[in-house]
Amino acid sequence: MEIELLNNKKISYKLQQQLTMLYKELNAELRQLSLEEILQEPEGIDIACCFDNDQVVGIAMMANYKVISGHKGMVEDVVVFEKYRGQGLGRKLMEKLLNCAIERKLDEVLLFSGHHRTTAINLYKSLGFKLKNSGLYVKKLV
Amino acid sequence: MEIELLNNKKISYKLQQQLTMLYKELNAELRQLSLEEILQEPEGIDIACCFDNDQVVGIAMMANYKVISGHKGMVEDVVVFEKYRGQGLGRKLMEKLLNCAIERKLDEVLLFSGHHRTTAINLYKSLGFKLKNSGLYVKKLV
Repeated sequence: MEIELLNNKKISYKLQQQLTMLYKELNAELRQLSLEEILQEPEGIDIACCFDNDQVVGIAMMANYKVISGHKGMVEDVVVFEKYRGQGLGRKLMEKLLNCAIERKLDEVLLFSGHHRTTAINLYKSLGFKLKNSGLYVKKLV
Repeated sequence: MEIELLNNKKISYKLQQQLTMLYKELNAELRQLSLEEILQEPEGIDIACCFDNDQVVGIAMMANYKVISGHKGMVEDVVVFEKYRGQGLGRKLMEKLLNCAIERKLDEVLLFSGHHRTTAINLYKSLGFKLKNSGLYVKKLV
């Protein structure tokens, strides 16, 4: 099992297909952006991927952006394939992203997690994330 | 009172100073990024600014980023100078950003707001934002 950062050179048709299937299984209605689209601005994103031989079994990504209150990372789309859960892969993916955050000299890293996702929340807390007294509000445009 | 989108050409020493003072008043400990730093990647951000003559009286910004689950906008650092509140300037700033979101063809716009900030929350809800059943988790790196 290997954790790697993806870049443009590592994107293949096969990898894209594997990811499309993985996310479709999670949420069939989700509009998915392709890796190619996401990596158009490689400075804006880090994508950590876990491979079992040449099969993707988990992925997590962190976009980064600059506003007056700091240079921030936003972790999104963290997923580990069901039969590979419970082996600490989520932690390894997150640790890889946190290393990227340090290298990019980010001020802070944010993420959102459903209140019912206790396993994920325990992982985030053990990595030093703290729950803020704030609500997340979303306006869909499509 | 005029709402304008900022770009590199509109940044002046005077404007930067006004903003620094405005955010310092809100949170003296905040590390602030300069407008110049933020606007290094103009495609990554929209900054709506409200001027009374040449005085900044309110500001709001929206960074945008691409992940597999979509091209998203994140609204941050929304502030209206105290004596200018209650005049609908926050709404005008947000509407300006939502227009930018449509022009950029974003899939959704996110923001977080402290649970106690009822005036702001009512504004966001009236603009079509919905509270998600998720917690915001933050890890500070500095």
